[in-house]
Amino acid sequence: MEEKKIPYKIYLDESEMPKQWYNLRADMKTKPAPLLNPATLQPLKAEELAPIFCEELVKQELDEDTKFIDIPEEILDFYKMYRPAPLVRAYYLEKALGTPAKIYYKFEGNNTSGSHKLNSAIAQAYYAKKQGLKGVTTETGAGQWGTALSMACSYFGLDCKVFMVKCSYEQKPFRREVMRTYGADVTPSPSENTEIGKKILAEHPGTTGSLGCAISEAVEVATTNEGYRYVLGSVLNQVLLHQSIIGLETKIALDKYDIKPDIIIGCAGGGSNLGGLISPFMGEKLRGEADYRIIAVEPASCPSFTRGKFAYDFADTGMICPLAKMYTLGSGFIPSANHAGGLRFHGMSSTLSQLYHDKYMEAVAVEQTAVFDAATQFARVEGILPAPESSHAIRVAIDEALKCKETGEEKTIVFGLTGTGYFDMYAYQSFNDGKMGDYIPTDEELAVGFAGLPKVDL
Amino acid sequence: MEEKKIPYKIYLDESEMPKQWYNLRADMKTKPAPLLNPATLQPLKAEELAPIFCEELVKQELDEDTKFIDIPEEILDFYKMYRPAPLVRAYYLEKALGTPAKIYYKFEGNNTSGSHKLNSAIAQAYYAKKQGLKGVTTETGAGQWGTALSMACSYFGLDCKVFMVKCSYEQKPFRREVMRTYGADVTPSPSENTEIGKKILAEHPGTTGSLGCAISEAVEVATTNEGYRYVLGSVLNQVLLHQSIIGLETKIALDKYDIKPDIIIGCAGGGSNLGGLISPFMGEKLRGEADYRIIAVEPASCPSFTRGKFAYDFADTGMICPLAKMYTLGSGFIPSANHAGGLRFHGMSSTLSQLYHDKYMEAVAVEQTAVFDAATQFARVEGILPAPESSHAIRVAIDEALKCKETGEEKTIVFGLTGTGYFDMYAYQSFNDGKMGDYIPTDEELAVGFAGLPKVDL
Repeated sequence: MEEKKIPYKIYLDESEMPKQWYNLRADMKTKPAPLLNPATLQPLKAEELAPIFCEELVKQELDEDTKFIDIPEEILDFYKMYRPAPLVRAYYLEKALGTPAKIYYKFEGNNTSGSHKLNSAIAQAYYAKKQGLKGVTTETGAGQWGTALSMACSYFGLDCKVFMVKCSYEQKPFRREVMRTYGADVTPSPSENTEIGKKILAEHPGTTGSLGCAISEAVEVATTNEGYRYVLGSVLNQVLLHQSIIGLETKIALDKYDIKPDIIIGCAGGGSNLGGLISPFMGEKLRGEADYRIIAVEPASCPSFTRGKFAYDFADTGMICPLAKMYTLGSGFIPSANHAGGLRFHGMSSTLSQLYHDKYMEAVAVEQTAVFDAATQFARVEGILPAPESSHAIRVAIDEALKCKETGEEKTIVFGLTGTGYFDMYAYQSFNDGKMGDYIPTDEELAVGFAGLPKVDL
Repeated sequence: MEEKKIPYKIYLDESEMPKQWYNLRADMKTKPAPLLNPATLQPLKAEELAPIFCEELVKQELDEDTKFIDIPEEILDFYKMYRPAPLVRAYYLEKALGTPAKIYYKFEGNNTSGSHKLNSAIAQAYYAKKQGLKGVTTETGAGQWGTALSMACSYFGLDCKVFMVKCSYEQKPFRREVMRTYGADVTPSPSENTEIGKKILAEHPGTTGSLGCAISEAVEVATTNEGYRYVLGSVLNQVLLHQSIIGLETKIALDKYDIKPDIIIGCAGGGSNLGGLISPFMGEKLRGEADYRIIAVEPASCPSFTRGKFAYDFADTGMICPLAKMYTLGSGFIPSANHAGGLRFHGMSSTLSQLYHDKYMEAVAVEQTAVFDAATQFARVEGILPAPESSHAIRVAIDEALKCKETGEEKTIVFGLTGTGYFDMYAYQSFNDGKMGDYIPTDEELAVGFAGLPKVDL
C-alpha cells in the first residue's frame, strides 16, 4: 500500500487557519448542567455573571446553541504571531519504540507563555478591551496561565493583576519575572491586599497559599474595583470554545494528508487543552459521522475523572464561585506533591464531565515517575523538553503505541503536547536525582473531600 | 505599487530546505589567516589537529576551497526535527515603532536548546559518531552550547562531558538540569577531575571559573582519554560552515517573496550566528552580485570588533589552544558584568575578522540596559522573550528602523533572533528591578589585555 509522504511537521498556511471557533455543546444531545447560584441553587443568569466576567464572555459561557462563532479579526491577527501550531509526526519516537503505530502530536509550546493557554488569554483580553475595561484579574498556580494572560494584556494595553500561589511565587521566580517583563502586577497569594487574603493570613499564618485562595482574591479585586473583571484559564465553557482552535487546526492538518486518527489523547486538569484538542473529533462522534477512542489522562494524585464523583461543586476552595456539575474530588480536596501544577485541580470542565459520564470518552490516571520517564524518553528523541502536564499525554501515547507493537496494529495516535517544561526544571531535577516519588490518595483521603460536597439535590 | 502579501511567518517546505552548507571562505579573495601552532608559529596541519578534533571536522576547518559541502542524510534528518526555522515579518514591531521599514527576523529559538547552537552541535556529534568515538568534551558558559551538544549526543548515543563555568553551574541550575535530562555529564569548572583544574584551584582557591579555564579542562579530558575529542560551539570555521544553514534558509525564504534586504544584522560573540546568518549574502557581496549593509552587534562591555586589535591570539585564557588571527581584546581580558554570556568572549571568528578588516561589514557596540530595553519592547509586541545575546541585534534593528522613520525610507531590515531568554530571567529580573548597570571598559583596562597578546610577527 502506497502511503502519502507525511512531513515531519505539518504547518498550515495562513489561509488555511480556522476563522471560527467551534462550540462543542451545540452538538451535544445531553447538554452540560448549568452553573448554579450557590445561594438560590437556580441556574445563573447572564446578569448575575456580568459583575464578575466580561459581557461577551458571559454570552459565550451560556451559549449552547451556536455551533460556530467568528473569531474577531484582532484575535486572528494575534494568533498569526504564534500560530498555526505544528502537527508533528513523531517519527523519532516511533522508531525508538519500534512500534508500527503512527504517532502525531499537536505542539502548543512554541510561544513565550510556553503553552496553549495563550489561545484563550488573548480572546479574554480582547473582549475585556472591547468592553472598555481597565484591566483583568486572575490567579495562577504553575504560572502558564498567568504568563499567557500577561502577554495578552500587554498586547491590548490592559492592566493585568495576577495572584500567584505563594509557594509558586517563591519557587518559580522565573515565571514571575516573565510576567513582570510583560508588565503584569504579580502578587503572592494570600496577600494583605484583599479582605479574604487578610482573613486567610489571620487564620493560617505562614500559609503558602492555594489555587482556591488565589481565585478568591482575584475575584474580590475584580468585583470591588471599577473597570475590572475576573478571567479564568480553564474549566469554563468559554475557554473550551477558544481552545477549539487546537483541535480545528489539528483536524485540518490531518485531513490535508487523509489521516484518520484511531486514538486521541490529551492531559486533563480543568480540561482546557483536552476540550480544545478533541472538540471537532468529538463533534463528529456526537453526530455519528466518525468514531474515535478519546482518552483523558490525569495524575493518579488528583484523579477527578477516574475516582471522583459526578456532582455539583464549587470551583474554588473558598466556595465563592458558582456551583458547577462536574467530576470532582470535592473543593476541600488538597492535591498533594505533584509537579504538574496545571493538573492539580479538584474538578473538571462540566462539558467534558458530561461527555465522560455519557461514555463518549475514557480516562486513565498515571503516576508521576512513569510520566517523567516518558517525558525524558520523549525529550531525547523528539528534541522537545515537555511540560510535566503534557507528559501525562505522552505517557499514555507511548503505552498505546507499545500495545500496537505487541499486536502489530498500525493505529494512528494523536496527542496534545500542550507545552514546554523550561520552568519546571526543579521537577526534572528531582526525577534526575531519583528523588521523585508517587502519590496515590487513599479512599479515606478521598472521602474527606467528598464529605465536603455541597448538598444539591436536583 | 502592489506588494505581494507577505505572511507573518515564512516556513519553507521540507523539499525547499538546503541540502548543502555553504563555505564562505571559498568566495573570499583574502582568506582568513591560518591557525598557528603556538610552539612553532607555523600553520597547523591536519595531523596536528587530529588528536583534539574529529577528522572530518579538521578537514572542514582547513578547507578554503570547496564552496558547497553536502549535509549528510543523518544530519538532514535531525534538522527536520526543529527546522526550517521561521523567517518572521515583524509586523507588530513595525507598527509599534511607526516605521516605514520592513523588518524580518530569522528565529532560531524554537528548539529545546533554545538557540541556533544545535545546528553545529548535531554536525559535530555526527562526525564524532562516524569516526567511532565514544564521546566528546566541551565547555559551556551561558549553557546554550552545552545544552545543544547534550541533545545532539543523546541522539547519536555519544557520551557528552560538559565543563560548565562554576558560577553559571550555580546560577543556572535549570540549564544544568536540561543537560542532565539529555544524559550529559556536567562538571563545574574548575574541577578536581583534571590536572589543569587542580592547578587552577590550588592557585586560586574559591575561584568561580572562566570560559578559558573550562576550555582547558575539556581539551585535557579529550586528549587524555581514548575515544574522545573536543568540540567547540563558535569561533571555528567549521562552526560557521554548519551555521550557514541559517543564512541559506533565510535567503530562500526571502527569494520566495522577491524580498531584497538592505541591512542584515546579527549579534556577535565568537561569530557562530553572525557568520551563519550572513554567509550567502556576504557571498553575493564578495562576488560583486549584490550589496548589503552588514552589521555585527557586540556588547560595549566586550567590544572585540570596535575596540580590539587585529592580531594573532589564543582562543583560551589558559593559552593551550592554537593561535588564531582575529579581532581580540587579548586572551587575558576578563569581560565583566554582562548578562549576555554568549557574547562574553575576548576574540572573534578569523573569517569574520578578515571580512571586517576588509570592510565588508560594520560593527556597533551597544550597552546592556539599552539592549534590555529593546528586548522588553520586542517581547511585548512580538510575543517572544528573546535571549540577551539576540537582543543586541534587536537593539540595532530598532535603531535602524527608527532612522527610517525619520528619513521616510522603506528599508528592508533582516536580523538574526538566535534564541530565547527563558534561562536568563535573573538578568531580566535585574532589569525589571532597575538594578542593571552598564559597563564600558576604560582604555587602561583594555591595555592590560593587549599587553598580553603573544608576540607574533608574520
